[in-house]
Amino acid sequence: MTSTRPLTRTFSSDNTAPTSPEILEAVARAASGPALPYGADAYTADVNRQLSEIFERDVDVLLVSTGTAANALSLAALTPPWGSVLCHRDSHINHDECGAPEFYTAGAKLVLLGGGDAKIDPGELRTAVGHMAGDKHSAQPSAVSVTQATETGAVYTLDELSVLGSITKDAGLRLHMDGARFAGAVASLGCTPAELTWRAGVDLLSFGATKNGTMTADAIVVFDRSLTTELTFRAKRAGQLPAKMRFHSAQVGAYLADDLWLRNAAHANAMAARLQEGLDKIPEIGRLGTVDANMLFCHLPEQVTKGLLAEGYVFYHDRWDPGVARFVTSFATSEQDVDDLLDAIRRHSAD
Amino acid sequence: MTSTRPLTRTFSSDNTAPTSPEILEAVARAASGPALPYGADAYTADVNRQLSEIFERDVDVLLVSTGTAANALSLAALTPPWGSVLCHRDSHINHDECGAPEFYTAGAKLVLLGGGDAKIDPGELRTAVGHMAGDKHSAQPSAVSVTQATETGAVYTLDELSVLGSITKDAGLRLHMDGARFAGAVASLGCTPAELTWRAGVDLLSFGATKNGTMTADAIVVFDRSLTTELTFRAKRAGQLPAKMRFHSAQVGAYLADDLWLRNAAHANAMAARLQEGLDKIPEIGRLGTVDANMLFCHLPEQVTKGLLAEGYVFYHDRWDPGVARFVTSFATSEQDVDDLLDAIRRHSAD
Amino acid sequence: MTSTRPLTRTFSSDNTAPTSPEILEAVARAASGPALPYGADAYTADVNRQLSEIFERDVDVLLVSTGTAANALSLAALTPPWGSVLCHRDSHINHDECGAPEFYTAGAKLVLLGGGDAKIDPGELRTAVGHMAGDKHSAQPSAVSVTQATETGAVYTLDELSVLGSITKDAGLRLHMDGARFAGAVASLGCTPAELTWRAGVDLLSFGATKNGTMTADAIVVFDRSLTTELTFRAKRAGQLPAKMRFHSAQVGAYLADDLWLRNAAHANAMAARLQEGLDKIPEIGRLGTVDANMLFCHLPEQVTKGLLAEGYVFYHDRWDPGVARFVTSFATSEQDVDDLLDAIRRHSAD
Amino acid sequence: MTSTRPLTRTFSSDNTAPTSPEILEAVARAASGPALPYGADAYTADVNRQLSEIFERDVDVLLVSTGTAANALSLAALTPPWGSVLCHRDSHINHDECGAPEFYTAGAKLVLLGGGDAKIDPGELRTAVGHMAGDKHSAQPSAVSVTQATETGAVYTLDELSVLGSITKDAGLRLHMDGARFAGAVASLGCTPAELTWRAGVDLLSFGATKNGTMTADAIVVFDRSLTTELTFRAKRAGQLPAKMRFHSAQVGAYLADDLWLRNAAHANAMAARLQEGLDKIPEIGRLGTVDANMLFCHLPEQVTKGLLAEGYVFYHDRWDPGVARFVTSFATSEQDVDDLLDAIRRHSAD
Repeated sequence: MTSTRPLTRTFSSDNTAPTSPEILEAVARAASGPALPYGADAYTADVNRQLSEIFERDVDVLLVSTGTAANALSLAALTPPWGSVLCHRDSHINHDECGAPEFYTAGAKLVLLGGGDAKIDPGELRTAVGHMAGDKHSAQPSAVSVTQATETGAVYTLDELSVLGSITKDAGLRLHMDGARFAGAVASLGCTPAELTWRAGVDLLSFGATKNGTMTADAIVVFDRSLTTELTFRAKRAGQLPAKMRFHSAQVGAYLADDLWLRNAAHANAMAARLQEGLDKIPEIGRLGTVDANMLFCHLPEQVTKGLLAEGYVFYHDRWDPGVARFVTSFATSEQDVDDLLDAIRRHSAD
Repeated sequence: MTSTRPLTRTFSSDNTAPTSPEILEAVARAASGPALPYGADAYTADVNRQLSEIFERDVDVLLVSTGTAANALSLAALTPPWGSVLCHRDSHINHDECGAPEFYTAGAKLVLLGGGDAKIDPGELRTAVGHMAGDKHSAQPSAVSVTQATETGAVYTLDELSVLGSITKDAGLRLHMDGARFAGAVASLGCTPAELTWRAGVDLLSFGATKNGTMTADAIVVFDRSLTTELTFRAKRAGQLPAKMRFHSAQVGAYLADDLWLRNAAHANAMAARLQEGLDKIPEIGRLGTVDANMLFCHLPEQVTKGLLAEGYVFYHDRWDPGVARFVTSFATSEQDVDDLLDAIRRHSAD
Repeated sequence: MTSTRPLTRTFSSDNTAPTSPEILEAVARAASGPALPYGADAYTADVNRQLSEIFERDVDVLLVSTGTAANALSLAALTPPWGSVLCHRDSHINHDECGAPEFYTAGAKLVLLGGGDAKIDPGELRTAVGHMAGDKHSAQPSAVSVTQATETGAVYTLDELSVLGSITKDAGLRLHMDGARFAGAVASLGCTPAELTWRAGVDLLSFGATKNGTMTADAIVVFDRSLTTELTFRAKRAGQLPAKMRFHSAQVGAYLADDLWLRNAAHANAMAARLQEGLDKIPEIGRLGTVDANMLFCHLPEQVTKGLLAEGYVFYHDRWDPGVARFVTSFATSEQDVDDLLDAIRRHSAD
Repeated sequence: MTSTRPLTRTFSSDNTAPTSPEILEAVARAASGPALPYGADAYTADVNRQLSEIFERDVDVLLVSTGTAANALSLAALTPPWGSVLCHRDSHINHDECGAPEFYTAGAKLVLLGGGDAKIDPGELRTAVGHMAGDKHSAQPSAVSVTQATETGAVYTLDELSVLGSITKDAGLRLHMDGARFAGAVASLGCTPAELTWRAGVDLLSFGATKNGTMTADAIVVFDRSLTTELTFRAKRAGQLPAKMRFHSAQVGAYLADDLWLRNAAHANAMAARLQEGLDKIPEIGRLGTVDANMLFCHLPEQVTKGLLAEGYVFYHDRWDPGVARFVTSFATSEQDVDDLLDAIRRHSAD
């Protein structure tokens, strides 16, 4: 009853993967008895404790059903309706959320900045944080949102992040991180989660889990805990306070336990690196951008694209620019899957 | 790691129950392979087909993570921002959703009506549907929302519903049903789901599943399919379009298969009836209102309340009025649980 | 080109009156030269100074084009989207603004309280300020809005206001006053504007001027000046920052100068008192409620209503209850107008 | 009590001008008697009739207090919350309204397009109207907003407008025109108002009047009259339904009578042309862009800017780019004012 396309040939997104066995088992365990609703259960308390340990300080946590909800709720807590959110032109919050940030913030604006590898250019940010500040005719710069890893699979270095964090904080703005692929960024950099977030000035983190192992649960990690009460009310009225919260918490709890989240991410990253290495040996393929995490862009000759599709491969192509294809790996991608893909590309390149 | 209070003594809400084994199995099956994201999977298609059969006509379905989201999205599709939603004073959308309907509708008003057993009084509705209609100074009556079963556990008869439906439709308004306990109402009335909804004029149904068996999935059943496109965009921007939709769909699919939803509801109803029968034989207990579904209100002497709490019973008391208690049964409540509760009440009544 | 109904027989509302000559002259003076736009002009600065003197403390002022805008902006600054505004069931913000408060607040709720003469009952307020406070399932009591004078023409005494103010402040809520007829209340009580507002706990005042003399200008008087910046941005994005602000300011400046606002209000009140006195001598007429300001309700026999309408009288009747009529006087109502109306009522009562 | 800077040296904006004498007289006349409130008066009916004649078809009209309100209300009627408005990067709705469109539309997005002279590039529009159409992850292109005259003082020709109108309509989108300087565009092109609006596909026009003669009144001209009811409710809840509407209507009525609006605009345009002609003879001054209406951009040597400021001239400089200045003329600018300005620039250029 699943997709007729085999997982082994599905590289369209990390959200086509199923879930980690440990997570499924945790959900089954959580189904073994009753629990108080709306987060007043032991599973939810555990997640809070786990994330506080992982981030090396007391944090609050809100579990939500989608990354869109995590992002939009976070931005609503950081930006007044007359504020603006500075973000990259190619960010998910701008392109792929059908206006969720505008909805949740009651009409704040996204102000779009450029920069290579979908990273915000510090110079553009420096100008934007003060643009029309205090002028009552203009939306007021209020928050900055960085995506880590970026939409093109690059990862901000700690230094890069530190620069953006300083510009943001020096201007009195708040800092949000869209961490839909946060685990991949941590695995890629080998740094601590703390270094990558609050130590760099992040106030709220959308802690993505669905793309890297869970089924239906993402989280907001709250470093500025003065925002927790507001976030709680906002989450409830957004329909993001599930009665049986424990079934979200059990997923995230298992995802965090024994570093499953980091192991999954490291594997996905390794599969993308393996693909990169293979592609770089095929002269007909023009690779694009930096591959820091689990995503890779390249130019594919038309007959390669056609050949892959004919074999049942699933991936985005000709969406950004003609001839450009994107391949995404996940915790469920095997070395064999990658090698088979490389083999197919090689074959069709030689056609 | 679950609640320290045993399920057997938890009567606070049907949302403290875990999930049906069939649903857990379905989720595990859905985890066995890849699937296209955002509802483009076979599980979601199946749910659509199942609900179309159950309701005896082609319907569209949106799967959401909470009943609050189902209600608020539905009302937003039925009411313009300058509209009003006519509902019972004691309805969930008024009391328990922290303004979600106002948020999703961009500021529509709830106009509150009275009536016994938390059912809308037809006379009040008749007046309200035309109140200030066409007057630009006033929010315009646009939709009616009925709760089936009601917040006090009563169930509108088909005749009662038909009267409200006619008043609504004759006035040109739209009809929403908050069916957080819809299965219980169907089981109680023994009618068809079609009779209880679109045949009575319902345009959109919040099809509750969480309280009656699923873990984290509810649904909107769309009878007026001209609303589907709008609902889809609204759901996405509300953060209610999960990437791995199949894990919601698998829950609801198993919930619908082999009448599990009706069997669960019939059981919960029977447990409440058993409790009612037992209580009515205890002279010290004053029962309140009609028990059509899985919920029961009564006056408890203070020493009974104290005694039950001391034994680890969990239930709401002194919330609506001093001395008033509420007991809710679920698919997971056993006859023994009810008999034990009755026994305890009897014992403490005799103190 | 004006209404075919003479002003002398128009008692439907104080908003049918034209404007005071002093105000027209001030507008003409303001048209004699250039001025910086958006409130950076001398007229606007003057209004700020005048109102600071009148209220015996430094206040900030926002000039807006309607009382609806004054109310909705004020409530948006005092209530978060998940908050509720406690107000009287018969208040203007509930009945006559087509959901403007809900729009401006991004979906806060109005919670409706009862009380005689359209004054909030202190007992109901005491219960409401704490209702579900802190419960994430419920909109949070955040502000109280009192109407002074009330929608039925009564005026809260200083003592009554002080009680409501204390309940509000003790519960940590904010206090808004809808002063669409504020001048009438001051004139009626003979107290200082300060006593009636910030000394009683009022944070923001909708300072009505249109009904009592200006053409198109009302104001928000800001006692809690920490709200001014937010209000300014909210006003701009609401379309309430006119380029040629001086033409609003000139109106309000003249309205305030030489106590014109109080003289106009005292006259309107006196005309209502004269009408009351006359009606109380006509046994067929049943007067209703308290007449503290410029508005009066009564039961009219059907033939009286018909007779008045036939003579070209304009007034609301049969809108609240069958047989109930409302008469409103204004600064432009003359003693002769009132005496003629009384004469007509007497004649038709004797029919 | 007016600005200490003389009007004769104020070129910062056309909104620093006072009002036309005819308009002041009309307001005085409207103050001579009573009138029914909220637009049920003869003045408002007259404006409707006048604009229907001017636009050669039955139109509906909403009078509002600012251009921001006209724009934001119009866009809210043309765009659902999940829609996007395609507009020029430099448009007023993007830069100068503090998010009013986002507020009124409940969170729609502005999608920014380029093009010379602040006119939308047809090629960019052609791509944008179909961008992600039908994709539930993306805000849906719903309306196009053109500014006529543009923010840089250029005017779309009828042919240019026709191309944009066709692209818009062929894609099924709605067309809004921000006509804050609409009169200037008509005067510049010498075409009929109909040609410039509904014949080119415009559904709703923000008919600016304040910058060209009125005091506090602008209008929305509704060509698609199916939108009127919605606009009326939206206007009321936005605080844009003034009780004494006649004082807005009287202004607009006089503005339209005897072609005052076109005479004022033609004069303002002529003054800008005179300034252009003079500047083009001063070799030190680098003029920028097209001068079709009443606005002119140029490069000024630093000593010229300093010299003008020292003499009390008021104008924007160094706001867009270093060294760039803007001069705006109005109906109140005299030939002598322009000649004096030219003389001053000549003098300081020779320093």
